[in-house]
Amino acid sequence: MRLHVVVLVVVGLVAGAVTNMSPASGDASGDAAPIFGVKIPEGYRDWRLISVAHEEGKLNDIRAILGNDLAIKAAREGKLPYPDGTIIARLAWSYDPLAESSEAFGRPQSYVAGAPKNGVQFMVKDSRKYASSGGWGFAQFDQGKPASEAVHNTCSSCHAAVKARDFVFNRYAP
Amino acid sequence: MRLHVVVLVVVGLVAGAVTNMSPASGDASGDAAPIFGVKIPEGYRDWRLISVAHEEGKLNDIRAILGNDLAIKAAREGKLPYPDGTIIARLAWSYDPLAESSEAFGRPQSYVAGAPKNGVQFMVKDSRKYASSGGWGFAQFDQGKPASEAVHNTCSSCHAAVKARDFVFNRYAP
Repeated sequence: MRLHVVVLVVVGLVAGAVTNMSPASGDASGDAAPIFGVKIPEGYRDWRLISVAHEEGKLNDIRAILGNDLAIKAAREGKLPYPDGTIIARLAWSYDPLAESSEAFGRPQSYVAGAPKNGVQFMVKDSRKYASSGGWGFAQFDQGKPASEAVHNTCSSCHAAVKARDFVFNRYAP
Repeated sequence: MRLHVVVLVVVGLVAGAVTNMSPASGDASGDAAPIFGVKIPEGYRDWRLISVAHEEGKLNDIRAILGNDLAIKAAREGKLPYPDGTIIARLAWSYDPLAESSEAFGRPQSYVAGAPKNGVQFMVKDSRKYASSGGWGFAQFDQGKPASEAVHNTCSSCHAAVKARDFVFNRYAP
């Protein structure tokens, strides 16, 4: 009896640790974003890195793409389509010259991440729930609050440019 | 007695999980880099993200800074100096325009990570072992092999530019 209790505690601890490492899509908090109803997945800032990018023009940011465990596995294997439960997070920051290297080189040399910029975006794969948008739900949060419905109406059309890659722009950076 | 065995198994499992998430500096493999004797820490590609950057000029890459658990904690708290056991990893890739967004915008819009470039670098904190270089051991590996001694002779002098930040260029990207 005692043994069973201990085993249950163990299973609970291990399950807890795993959950903590990679929240399921249900572990989310705050207000849901319009249209797709996606909430901010808990612990996403601790997810592993898929890739990095810089956007020019109006966006003018430097960004990182993180993924939950399902996203990382699929991205590494280059296996499409992404499985249900995949969540991909796009973080972005202002694109700032680093003072120390500008001084050393006499011109901008390094550009680094400054304050958060252009919101945090998520793609959530649920092939049944989001059947009408290629199996993906999209969301953007600005300082923790969902962006407008107008913003969310732009997601699918832009990602259609990479329909052949299951609507995902990024590729895993080895 | 049975209980003790189970408890030991639990402790072992949890310790194993923690180790797996964040290898100690001892869990390393391959050839040691010159001067500082640093080896490639196992599982570093799964470490959490500290920040991202782009380097212009000859380097011309886009990069990510990852850290083991000690590095992440210290970087988030902005607490200096970094504690012994900290390992910071700098990965870099070629800086490539993304074809799909160049087509859509009629000019380069997105720059993404291509093939690995400029090696993988590590900073390992051990205030006793590396007392003569500010407490840090430096290493660069090109395609898994240690770079030359000449390359390793350049680390400390360059990082001296940010001595006030414990020789670390990057800051945590929130």
